[in-house]
Amino acid sequence: MTAEIVTIGDELLDGTVANGNAERLGAVLRSLGVRVVRATTVPDEPAAIEGALRAALESADVVVTTGGLGATADDRTKQVAARVLGRKLVLDEDVLARVRAHFESRGLVMPEVNVAQAMVPEGARPIENASGTAPGLALDADGALLFLFPGVPSEMEAMVSNYLVPFLEGRGARRRIEERTLRTTGVPETAIAEIVVPLSRKLARIDVQYLPSLLGVDLRITGRGESAADASKAADRASDMLADALAPFVYARGRESLEEIVGYLLTMNGKTLAVAESCTAGALGARITEVPGSSDYFRGGVVAYSDDLKRRLLGVRAGTLRKHGAVSAEVALEMAKGARDRGRTDCGIGITGIAGPGGGSPEKPVGLVYVAVACGRKAAVREHRFPGARSAVREQAVQAALELTRRALLGIEGEE
Amino acid sequence: MTAEIVTIGDELLDGTVANGNAERLGAVLRSLGVRVVRATTVPDEPAAIEGALRAALESADVVVTTGGLGATADDRTKQVAARVLGRKLVLDEDVLARVRAHFESRGLVMPEVNVAQAMVPEGARPIENASGTAPGLALDADGALLFLFPGVPSEMEAMVSNYLVPFLEGRGARRRIEERTLRTTGVPETAIAEIVVPLSRKLARIDVQYLPSLLGVDLRITGRGESAADASKAADRASDMLADALAPFVYARGRESLEEIVGYLLTMNGKTLAVAESCTAGALGARITEVPGSSDYFRGGVVAYSDDLKRRLLGVRAGTLRKHGAVSAEVALEMAKGARDRGRTDCGIGITGIAGPGGGSPEKPVGLVYVAVACGRKAAVREHRFPGARSAVREQAVQAALELTRRALLGIEGEE
Repeated sequence: MTAEIVTIGDELLDGTVANGNAERLGAVLRSLGVRVVRATTVPDEPAAIEGALRAALESADVVVTTGGLGATADDRTKQVAARVLGRKLVLDEDVLARVRAHFESRGLVMPEVNVAQAMVPEGARPIENASGTAPGLALDADGALLFLFPGVPSEMEAMVSNYLVPFLEGRGARRRIEERTLRTTGVPETAIAEIVVPLSRKLARIDVQYLPSLLGVDLRITGRGESAADASKAADRASDMLADALAPFVYARGRESLEEIVGYLLTMNGKTLAVAESCTAGALGARITEVPGSSDYFRGGVVAYSDDLKRRLLGVRAGTLRKHGAVSAEVALEMAKGARDRGRTDCGIGITGIAGPGGGSPEKPVGLVYVAVACGRKAAVREHRFPGARSAVREQAVQAALELTRRALLGIEGEE
Repeated sequence: MTAEIVTIGDELLDGTVANGNAERLGAVLRSLGVRVVRATTVPDEPAAIEGALRAALESADVVVTTGGLGATADDRTKQVAARVLGRKLVLDEDVLARVRAHFESRGLVMPEVNVAQAMVPEGARPIENASGTAPGLALDADGALLFLFPGVPSEMEAMVSNYLVPFLEGRGARRRIEERTLRTTGVPETAIAEIVVPLSRKLARIDVQYLPSLLGVDLRITGRGESAADASKAADRASDMLADALAPFVYARGRESLEEIVGYLLTMNGKTLAVAESCTAGALGARITEVPGSSDYFRGGVVAYSDDLKRRLLGVRAGTLRKHGAVSAEVALEMAKGARDRGRTDCGIGITGIAGPGGGSPEKPVGLVYVAVACGRKAAVREHRFPGARSAVREQAVQAALELTRRALLGIEGEE
């Protein structure tokens, strides 16, 4: 089965809005084994919409459009579709009742202009819009299937999940691919590839994609099969093998974030956490508390941008600062211990570094960061040299601190 | 002048990668007054590329493609373009020398496969690629102009700025629109529209767009004219009028962030800052220090998720916590003063609230946040009820705290 996507709207062509609808439709169709052969974006002009619709219906089994279903003069998709298919627009009483009810439920009288939303090409099947007034429409078009969806992403997505996917499955589209994710951090893509490439040659019906970001490399493992169960089996087998091979670097199997994993380990071990941040200035605390319920294990901490606050609020010794400098393994360790002691928690994390753009020197360049963790009587500290600009250095520092904490909680880092 | 964009790549059709190239090209062409009449995305298949190229060259004056210029078998754009234009591929010695030099500068010998990158359609003008090996190409095509750019965004963008824009300007495209931005926060879009709509009716050659986000509403004011100077004049006049009308809500004219404005006001007034955060847990400190050089005025602060830390590290009184609860105007004020006093700074900011999803009650629901600022002997506190999920509540809380601080520094908030 092949598909074509036609997205409609001036704002998609002049750089005002990213075309997220085309991207999301592409992903859904791919997951159903439907190949997208073209995606076209046209302005809100009947001639342009007509040209795109005719070309699409000629070349694909399924055509999906988004946009141009509102009640204003700009919204021409239905009229054009009716013309292309040689049908009349007729009033759909059910749709009219629903549009009217939408207004009445808000204590409003439906404006006359909205009657236009109940006009549909003859033979069209309306698709309910749970959150807006414009219904979607499904049409048979000489063997091809045409779906008209609204341009508002949340409305379109609801119709895709509730209508398009079951409909295509009913027509024989099958979920023949299954995906698994392995999340790694602290190891470069090339090193991962050296492990993954020889292994994946031995695996049938598997694709492995590398999705690198500042925070690490995610592996997207796609299993294919004649059925969803087949595909799952292939994906699971590959995921297990690769997770074993990459073991210490894999922090999550699935979509969990590193802060969720750290929160999970703290909860399992009944431990509490506090932080001491210099160059990240609160970003670590903010990440940790993105997890709902993190107040069960996170107590708080200190943002110590100045040496003065490092001493007064964390108990970092003046001698340590003088001898090693604020950006040093020794200060990171004293910060982690200070967070633990002043926070009266089981574990403390410390981060100190030079995020740039200023403040670097030949011995201590921009990007130099020390992260430390102290849990009970054990502690660990790591030196990093992160590439990139200020925000990139900070994000990588937070990630490295969380990863060191994960390893400390697992007992694979830390000495007395 | 009209343009068509053809983006090439399987990964753009299956939801793997967002089509940022089409969006960025659209924005650049719009700024030059070039109307984009269609954008098409096709897979890495010669027949699909050929169809899209032929259709585009028929309908637009300028056709820009991205993708398919690499050295591998997937990369077919040049071959297809040569076929569509009825030209041969010939070896360009200059390009070959540059590709070879690219490898040699890294101490590598050029692989033979890369010779393919020096093959260009007859009559094509190569466009230098500063960071990769694949050159871009410019071709005359029966009155239309065809530009082939690489798919790597940074390489494409460099060619657009260094080559495409000057080239189109040389062909008569003129920057006939100019944009100005007004950034507001703390006032809903509808209230802004009530002020803007009647005013903008009086302004000629002006469009006003509302760009709402969690952090506020940006107004994008577009001025049009026969020349860039004309357009600037229209845009400036509108920007001045609207900024006056919206005065206390406008925090920036231009692209500056609220944390940059607060940093600027602190620097101008020679004042220093510390923070005390509960529900935002460091996100305020992280925002403030996104500004390079913020260590000149920012000292640090305390993340006090627990009541215990609010008392011990910030000096919030046990009686205040008992009487009013941790989420109260009184505690926010004591946190701001505690940050100021413990940080030994001129100003302190306090945030306490319920970010959710748990922790709410009928009297103190999820989304209730108090922000306070204390500068010297003056202080101010505000109650907010933010909609949305945990991360949305936190982002809005940080923004509201920065806005209150901006107003306090301007003397329009705060009492002794």
